[in-house]
Amino acid sequence: MEEKKKLADIGMIGLAVMGENLSLNIERNGFTVAVWNYEAGIVDRFVEGRGKGKKFIATHSIQELVASISRPRKIMMMIRAGAPVDEVIEELLPFLDKGDILIDGGNSNYLDTTRRYEYLKEKGIYFVGSGVSGGEEGALKGPSLMPGGAEEAWPEIKPIFLAIAAKLDDGSPCCDWVGDAGAGHFVKMVHNGIEYGDIQLIAESYQVLKDLTGMDTDELHDTFKKWNQGPLDSYLIEITAAIFTKKDTDGTPLINKILDKAGQKGTGKWAVETALELGNPLTMIAESVFARTLSSLKRERVQASEILKGPAIDFKENKEEFVDAVGKALYAAKIISYTQGFSLFRQTALTYKWKLNYAGIAQMWRGGCIIRSAFLGKIREAYQKNPELENLMLEPYFNEQIHLSQPSWRKVITVAISNGVPVPAMSSALAYYDGYRTASLPANLIQAQRDYFGAHTYERTDKPEGTFFHTDWTGEGGDTSSSTYNA
Amino acid sequence: MEEKKKLADIGMIGLAVMGENLSLNIERNGFTVAVWNYEAGIVDRFVEGRGKGKKFIATHSIQELVASISRPRKIMMMIRAGAPVDEVIEELLPFLDKGDILIDGGNSNYLDTTRRYEYLKEKGIYFVGSGVSGGEEGALKGPSLMPGGAEEAWPEIKPIFLAIAAKLDDGSPCCDWVGDAGAGHFVKMVHNGIEYGDIQLIAESYQVLKDLTGMDTDELHDTFKKWNQGPLDSYLIEITAAIFTKKDTDGTPLINKILDKAGQKGTGKWAVETALELGNPLTMIAESVFARTLSSLKRERVQASEILKGPAIDFKENKEEFVDAVGKALYAAKIISYTQGFSLFRQTALTYKWKLNYAGIAQMWRGGCIIRSAFLGKIREAYQKNPELENLMLEPYFNEQIHLSQPSWRKVITVAISNGVPVPAMSSALAYYDGYRTASLPANLIQAQRDYFGAHTYERTDKPEGTFFHTDWTGEGGDTSSSTYNA
Repeated sequence: MEEKKKLADIGMIGLAVMGENLSLNIERNGFTVAVWNYEAGIVDRFVEGRGKGKKFIATHSIQELVASISRPRKIMMMIRAGAPVDEVIEELLPFLDKGDILIDGGNSNYLDTTRRYEYLKEKGIYFVGSGVSGGEEGALKGPSLMPGGAEEAWPEIKPIFLAIAAKLDDGSPCCDWVGDAGAGHFVKMVHNGIEYGDIQLIAESYQVLKDLTGMDTDELHDTFKKWNQGPLDSYLIEITAAIFTKKDTDGTPLINKILDKAGQKGTGKWAVETALELGNPLTMIAESVFARTLSSLKRERVQASEILKGPAIDFKENKEEFVDAVGKALYAAKIISYTQGFSLFRQTALTYKWKLNYAGIAQMWRGGCIIRSAFLGKIREAYQKNPELENLMLEPYFNEQIHLSQPSWRKVITVAISNGVPVPAMSSALAYYDGYRTASLPANLIQAQRDYFGAHTYERTDKPEGTFFHTDWTGEGGDTSSSTYNA
Repeated sequence: MEEKKKLADIGMIGLAVMGENLSLNIERNGFTVAVWNYEAGIVDRFVEGRGKGKKFIATHSIQELVASISRPRKIMMMIRAGAPVDEVIEELLPFLDKGDILIDGGNSNYLDTTRRYEYLKEKGIYFVGSGVSGGEEGALKGPSLMPGGAEEAWPEIKPIFLAIAAKLDDGSPCCDWVGDAGAGHFVKMVHNGIEYGDIQLIAESYQVLKDLTGMDTDELHDTFKKWNQGPLDSYLIEITAAIFTKKDTDGTPLINKILDKAGQKGTGKWAVETALELGNPLTMIAESVFARTLSSLKRERVQASEILKGPAIDFKENKEEFVDAVGKALYAAKIISYTQGFSLFRQTALTYKWKLNYAGIAQMWRGGCIIRSAFLGKIREAYQKNPELENLMLEPYFNEQIHLSQPSWRKVITVAISNGVPVPAMSSALAYYDGYRTASLPANLIQAQRDYFGAHTYERTDKPEGTFFHTDWTGEGGDTSSSTYNA
């Protein structure tokens, strides 16, 4: 009688660097992992190489992979987003049983994840789409994990996910259940948008300090290092401080040799496109994405700098006070960035009828990912206290922080504008703040115009909402209907 | 022998109000129009009703329609955008001959138009996608027409299009050939985005005047009326002035009774989404679209106005000078809006290898549509002088206008910000101006960060562009490659 082999706790499909490192992370935490890759040679190379002597089960077909895993089976895909995910799902399906769990840890679009979740739900398979953040090092040592989808799967995968996730100093893992359907990948998308916002705000602060106060890289280092010891404490502020100390081979600061053309991989724009589709004002992140595209027009900018004139720099502020004000402005604008991101979550939850775990999302981002910060602990507390919080700024802590920072925030922006230094994200954030707290915006005029030229109708302040009025503004209107002009 | 019937100059598919009014417009200009609609009753009702005694040929099948038109046939579709357009094309194809011309005058997505253009090109059919602006009244009396696609069609349809288009005072028609493939519908999409921008800037000016100078509607009327006699002369400023005179039934200004929740039909967001996809900074229009979504959060805003505090209004400017400054700020920001729109055209032309007729686009918009203005005449002149103009602001006239307006522009924004009045579009426009004319943006720090956390590499100011460098910032990096972390 053949000896019964021990079955694996989880299967991994895809042994590119992310899948390989995640597998090593899972195994290191005590689990047995069955591994499979389309190219059989890669599986063998892995188990004879980095995986040698460890609890891996090499498999050479999808059928063999499935047969190697204990039930209910847990199978994670770390493969290229898009059609490959659908193809692997179809290949897996004949071998799966009801109650098995399939996890997509790739960079999938959340709408695809929602579609797959619905499709597999019909077949009795629990589908989980999980954001995985932290790059290859994070995958190996502890990523930020954002799983969402079939909640029935969570108790089954929870021990593994919590074990492999990044840990905070208090030992708490940067992983929690996010919410329904495509919520896991949605949260990862917004994470990337917020990352763009955080980075842009730091960049604008750098330019204001450099161009207005004349700081050199040593002073910039000291400033960011100091900021990193206060409420701005975060990975991005920390590495910014470190960047200013790096010297080029000639001994001068490397930062001054780097070309000011920012690249992007396109993930930030998805969040903005989603916000446009859902009708949620994600202005600060939009400005941050566009700021990168503007930066890439380097040749045009150099040419324009000779032709388009601005004011001469006339900086009269007290330097120390102004630097302190820049830190406060950065902090206030950062609150707006997260406010907008969490507001998009709320809009999405309403639109798709998702239950989203706001406090959990903040917790997931506290470690293991690019935007990790002390600040996210405060956001977590806010949503733990009130999961129905309508807007982050309304929570007493953030409300107070904004009020304390507000004079500095306005000061820095007006000084920058008067001196011709661009602060698109910082000023967009303030415009959002002022717009959100304005009971009467000028949209009444917009509605009057739309009714004037297109008979789009309007509501009235003295009538119940949902009742629509049309005025014959010119005396020539009449039977024009609002359905005929699209503006 | 049967008498040979006179053949029609053009066929019209779709007799909803836009198709009906366009047909009447074409007939009034001396052309015979064969008309067809899916529901035969509508055709008969039209030729016995508004079309009675006029040069219309009623047809009751697609085959009959096609047979009623002289060659090369010109057939215009005024039907619902989307799948219906593809369906009608398939039904038409068996009856068309090579060299026939098919025109889509609906609100089609430009990518669909490009796809249809390519598809029909293979079959020897000339496909034209035409933006049609001005609503149903414009369709009847003279719309702005923006045709693009198969240029071979232009000489054939030009007499009809120029005849029916809106005319300026000098008799010139608001129609010209736009460019290749889906360019006609692309231009219409950008038109709608610019309309959002123009409207938002007027709304912000209104709020600044109302909240800071305390103007009542009579003063607002006088101000906008005066502005309409200067460089801001435009349809939207004209109707704004008129709106302030309209009284409600109780004799008070109607504008003060209209609810400040702006609606939208979604066309503005398409332009922003396209700009995100093509990597072009369309910031001011993005802020304008998002300003509408923020306005729609009326209940939240009223609640927040009690909690989120701003500065008390402390307006110390000379009222007359400040009002003049607001007009200048509005004008400068408007230049930016059109600059961004035409910059998107240029980016699109490069991306798709389209030839775009920039001067013609400005001409088309000078009359017949919502954004018609004297200002567009200046844009036309700029592109007539230099069709390769890289950025509108660089043209001497606009350059001078911005320089003349600039102190006022900065003044108005800083006063608004200091007083807590939101001016998202006006300040976003200024941030774009300052960013575009800044030779060294802080994107070097963004690149340093991206290389630090994700090994995304950077270019250097002292090396040829296109050469990418990676630094081991922490001393722990090494073989991390830039393809493994997407940020």
